[in-house]
Amino acid sequence: MNVDKELFAAFAFHAGLMAVKTLFMSFLTARQRFAKNNFISREDGKTRPGAKIGTGVDEDVERVRRAHQNDIENIFPFLTLGFLYLFTNPGLSTATTVFRLFSGARILHSVVYLWEIPQPSRALAFFAGMGANLYMGYKILSTFMSAM
Amino acid sequence: MNVDKELFAAFAFHAGLMAVKTLFMSFLTARQRFAKNNFISREDGKTRPGAKIGTGVDEDVERVRRAHQNDIENIFPFLTLGFLYLFTNPGLSTATTVFRLFSGARILHSVVYLWEIPQPSRALAFFAGMGANLYMGYKILSTFMSAM
Amino acid sequence: MNVDKELFAAFAFHAGLMAVKTLFMSFLTARQRFAKNNFISREDGKTRPGAKIGTGVDEDVERVRRAHQNDIENIFPFLTLGFLYLFTNPGLSTATTVFRLFSGARILHSVVYLWEIPQPSRALAFFAGMGANLYMGYKILSTFMSAM
Repeated sequence: MNVDKELFAAFAFHAGLMAVKTLFMSFLTARQRFAKNNFISREDGKTRPGAKIGTGVDEDVERVRRAHQNDIENIFPFLTLGFLYLFTNPGLSTATTVFRLFSGARILHSVVYLWEIPQPSRALAFFAGMGANLYMGYKILSTFMSAM
Repeated sequence: MNVDKELFAAFAFHAGLMAVKTLFMSFLTARQRFAKNNFISREDGKTRPGAKIGTGVDEDVERVRRAHQNDIENIFPFLTLGFLYLFTNPGLSTATTVFRLFSGARILHSVVYLWEIPQPSRALAFFAGMGANLYMGYKILSTFMSAM
Repeated sequence: MNVDKELFAAFAFHAGLMAVKTLFMSFLTARQRFAKNNFISREDGKTRPGAKIGTGVDEDVERVRRAHQNDIENIFPFLTLGFLYLFTNPGLSTATTVFRLFSGARILHSVVYLWEIPQPSRALAFFAGMGANLYMGYKILSTFMSAM
């Protein structure tokens, strides 16, 4: 397991950024929960008169939760695919480009989702991130095919 | 951090496969969304007359989403457990068997879920994958117990 | 990619523990599903008279699922952040403290959630885990900033 130092650093930066970006979705959800007085569990609304409890109640809360779930579905696989991709002997500039494309696409995906920018904006951001993930997945599977 | 090359390759192949398999669930969900005209956010249905918007509306869409969520709950822990398991000094053939069992079980789990094959098929596929994960978890915790 | 052996062992233990802890949430959900006769897919209730099928039906089932989802949102990023943090040259005792804090906070979070201990208990457990994650995220981003 030997990986070029600069290659690893590029992965470390973008993986750290994407993990932290996903964590931040929790704060955006909380902001909407307080703004709309809609909480997820009954113990949360004890001291808030008129609080609505439950999921699926408020569209603004649910919108952030859907954006968060989409990050889970796409960013968490990236955290592993990006790491394994380092071992497929990629060029530094190629790898950096793929990582930047992914990070940019996923940040854009959240902006587009939360500001409700009309389609196909969200689909395009989604496919840019998905394309980066599938490209790395293809490189990994073809490199390590013989170890199946 | 030294790991046998072949051991790492076996992990890399199966982890890459499982990450890509999870990503593919998004496409299966999208296919059902178009087939049943049921989209997740209101901006998605703007140009589709009669589109139903929201979650929990169409059973065929929800079924794929449940299978996807089950992958998230089981495959994402595998991506880390499989990696750490490499450092517990496993035999190559044992490790390869565990990885193959996991990959096979999770692919089967989705087939069984999406084709609605009667129980206990889904439970058996689930427990085969869970067993592989817990076995690796046990090896990791017992190997690194002293670093608690 | 060189990491101190003891540092890696501390991460391996806590990451393994947290992955296994998340997997266990599936069993807690299943226990509630059988106790409340509320299953997730129609094929699951075939031989159980009076079984309710679907999500959002039973509060005790949903409570475990929400705790599980919160683990997914916080523990899965930890599995990557904790690993990358090893490469930011942390002191062994600092790193061990951060990992222990995270593990303790997340176990407490589930206890508090499932036993419905009044707020702000759950918020405090959540923020302790989130704080550990953001601290590691900050160290990673500042260490590898130049590889952006």
